[in-house]
Order: sequence, then C-alpha cells, then structure tokens
Amino acid sequence: MPREITAYSNPLVKRVRNLREKRHRREEGLFLAEGLRILAEAQEAGHLPQWIFYAADSAGHPLVRRLVAATEKAGGEAIETTRDILHKLSGKDNPQTVLGVYRQFDTSLARIDRAAAGIWIVAQSLRDPGNLGTILRTGDAVGAGGLILVDDCVDPFSVEAVRATMGALFTQRIAQARWEDFLPWLRAGPGQLVGTSLKATGSYRAPRYEAPTFLLVGNEAQGLPEAYEAECDLLVKIPMLGKADSLNAAVATAVIAYEVLGQRS
Amino acid sequence: MPREITAYSNPLVKRVRNLREKRHRREEGLFLAEGLRILAEAQEAGHLPQWIFYAADSAGHPLVRRLVAATEKAGGEAIETTRDILHKLSGKDNPQTVLGVYRQFDTSLARIDRAAAGIWIVAQSLRDPGNLGTILRTGDAVGAGGLILVDDCVDPFSVEAVRATMGALFTQRIAQARWEDFLPWLRAGPGQLVGTSLKATGSYRAPRYEAPTFLLVGNEAQGLPEAYEAECDLLVKIPMLGKADSLNAAVATAVIAYEVLGQRS
Repeated sequence: MPREITAYSNPLVKRVRNLREKRHRREEGLFLAEGLRILAEAQEAGHLPQWIFYAADSAGHPLVRRLVAATEKAGGEAIETTRDILHKLSGKDNPQTVLGVYRQFDTSLARIDRAAAGIWIVAQSLRDPGNLGTILRTGDAVGAGGLILVDDCVDPFSVEAVRATMGALFTQRIAQARWEDFLPWLRAGPGQLVGTSLKATGSYRAPRYEAPTFLLVGNEAQGLPEAYEAECDLLVKIPMLGKADSLNAAVATAVIAYEVLGQRS
Repeated sequence: MPREITAYSNPLVKRVRNLREKRHRREEGLFLAEGLRILAEAQEAGHLPQWIFYAADSAGHPLVRRLVAATEKAGGEAIETTRDILHKLSGKDNPQTVLGVYRQFDTSLARIDRAAAGIWIVAQSLRDPGNLGTILRTGDAVGAGGLILVDDCVDPFSVEAVRATMGALFTQRIAQARWEDFLPWLRAGPGQLVGTSLKATGSYRAPRYEAPTFLLVGNEAQGLPEAYEAECDLLVKIPMLGKADSLNAAVATAVIAYEVLGQRS
C-alpha cells in the first residue's frame, strides 16, 4: 500500500535529497536514479529500488503501476508524492515523474569474472560524469563485461553519472580499485592491457587484440601516467590529423572498442 | 593602451554579459570564448577578439601580453579587469583569467568548399552543446572540413558549446542550414551522403566510402527522420550488442568517421 508524502519537512525526503551528496551516499550505501525508462531497465536487469517515489498524477501509468507492485513485492516501499517534492529530490527544474532509491552495488574487483566478456573497459581518474555515462553506454553496445574505475574517478553513483548512463549502470558491471590493487588482479589471470597513448607509434587499427582485452583510458586532461603506460602490453594511438592534441575520452574509448569488436565479428 | 574596468555597472560589462543569451548574440553578431588556451588557438587560426578581458593579476603572463598586443594591433580593445567581473561575464565560479569577445563567423553553406576535405560531418537537430563540441573536436582529429548544422541545432556560439569545442570552433568550418537548402546544395556537386540508422542492414565497416563523404547524424533522442534517411546514398549501422538501443551521438559520429579515415590511410 503506497504511503503518501506531501511535506518537504518529511525526514525521508530530507534523507533522499541528501543522496545528491557523495558523503551521504557513502554513509547510506544508497543512490538515486530518475525516470521511468531507467527504472524499467533497472527492473529488467534485476534491480528494484528500496523506495520508489512517483507523482500522484502518474499513478495510473501502467509502467509505474508495474514498478510499484514489483517494488512492494520485493520489500521496498512505494511513495506517492507531489511534483514539487520530486523537483526537490532530483534538483531538476523538470523532474521525472518517478525516482528510485537503490542500494549501491558491490564494486569490488573480486566480483569481476573476466571470462564473462572479451572486452573490459578500464578508466583511470575519469572525472566527468557525462564521460562515465557515455563510456558505460559504449561498453554495453560493444558487449563489454563492464567498467573498472581506477584511482580517483567520478562517483558512478552520483546523480549526474547515473543520469548519463541512461540505464547502462544497471546492465554493465562496475568495479572500483586503486592501480596498486588492479594490476596484481589483472596479472593473476589472462588479459591484454591496451593503453591509448599519444606516445604510441602504432595505429590502433594495426594490432590483433587478444581476449579478454582490457582497454585502459586515462584522465580527460592528463591522459595516462607514464608508469601506467609502461605496464601496458600494448600501446596504441588514434591518428589525430588536426590542430587539437586530444580526443574526448569517451570518443577515444569508443573508437578503439569498436575496432576490437570489428576484428572479432 | 588597455582600458581598466572595475565597475559591474559598466555598460560594456552588461553588454558582454548579455552575450550568454542567444537573442543578444544574434543581435550583436558576437560571442564569448574563455581561457588562454582557446584564445591562443583562435589566434593561431587567424581569429582575434574585438575585446579581450583579462584579470589584472595575469597581465604579466607572456601569452596574455601577446594576445593583448595582437588584439590592439588588429583594432580590438584590451580591458584589464577584476576576477569578480570575469566571474560575472563567464557565469562560472572559477572563471578563466582571459575572455574574448569575437565576431560570429559567416555560417552560410556558400562558404563551404567541399573539395577542401574528404570528410564533412552533418548534424541534424543536435541539441546538446557538449555533443556539438565533442563532434567538432572529432572532426578536427579526422581531418574533416567542418560541421554542417542542419535544422534546429544548439547554437554553436553559445558559451557552453564554445567551451566544449576546446578551440575546434576556430579551426573547423561551421555552416548552418535548413534541410531544404542543404539537400540541393549537396546534390549540386560530388558527395556521398551517409546516414547512421538502426534500420540499416549493413555494418558501417562493410562499405567503401567515397570522398567527399558527408556523414549525417541525427538528433540525440529521435535519430534521423525517415524522409532524411531516404535521401541518403548509403545507410549504415553500428552494431549494438547490449541492452541499450542507441549510442551517444558524438560517439556514433566518431566511430564511423574513424572508419572512413582508416580506409583512406
């Protein structure tokens, strides 16, 4: 039976609103996802929210009804509320009509089964939530197993990142690790570590990529640290014919990931 | 001799600040670009600002001095100002130390010389300034001649778009046109119009692309209208192995543009 909340001062409203801050997300182990489409994709991938908030005027929508029923059946709580409160929770001027509060996934490396896919994407100190989202969507498209975030990356559970993944957050596996932990994990099994570097001599189209390929992309502004490049099994370069000296990080990832995929099909 | 402006109420400050709105940009025929790096790239590409604003404490920076001298020599005006006013002009919490006000380029199709490059990118109803910037950077990297914006695209002279191009705005040719005008222009000369479509049967890796290739990408949410697809000489598909049904528009552009480039080198 859905609960109704219409007061800004409601403690749950405050608690959920706080999830827009990383500190609170970490303390609670929760995060926000907005929009019917993302929540439906989450459900399809087996994820149901702890709480689902929806605007009273969308209670009759069949997808909302289905999500509410599934959430309650799984022990979560459904909350009928106002557009104003959804606005307050999401921080957006035109909030989506549904919003879910999810438990964060376990992002330890131990949960990655490298044999499950022929491509994995590894991002180092990736800072932009839009890039994280775009890279996850690209990973989904090329059949990657998931995304391994190395060192100080943007929080994949931030509202902006979740939004940018457009649902891929729930379908792609995500891990977080320090480089010192990632490297021994990688070397404990099969895997070709491929770095993108302006210093590389060979084009990304020349080599044969070996599965599982771990495609390593560096920070948006700095690229990969030299010490990390030195650990790669292969360094490849994307030709740059113009004046600029770098591509967008998500674009660079996609160009190489699609070359790997193209070689295999 | 640089003028000094320290008052918020200065009419030029108001006028420049207004350039963050499209209406004022169109009326004035001007736009804003921020940051030493972008202004230096603009200069290299032959563009100097009408006004250059810089923070008094960065007046001694050699690049700032060079830009100021070149701007004044070309008939523009240099204005020494405060960080607070730069903040007010840029709308950013941490404003860059220099900001230039440039005359908008002529973006008519007539100025496009299709023979100048083997690839041109054509974006239809592209709405996101970040995508526009990323696509321009990609165009620069693959040696494209420029970007043709068809129908209602984001304003390439908006502060967000200029920022996202990271200087490529000044090195890539940009045109704006309605589809009804673009199509006859295209057909009046050589050119292969290649559309990306989920309905296409062939992979983007299969065909031989003919120069000049006009790579047509659709709106972020809707893709290309059917009538536009019907006008293409070739429709290609990027394989999508996952759950999601679309790639980011800039990613899709880059994947195909690099295939075209790869075939030619």
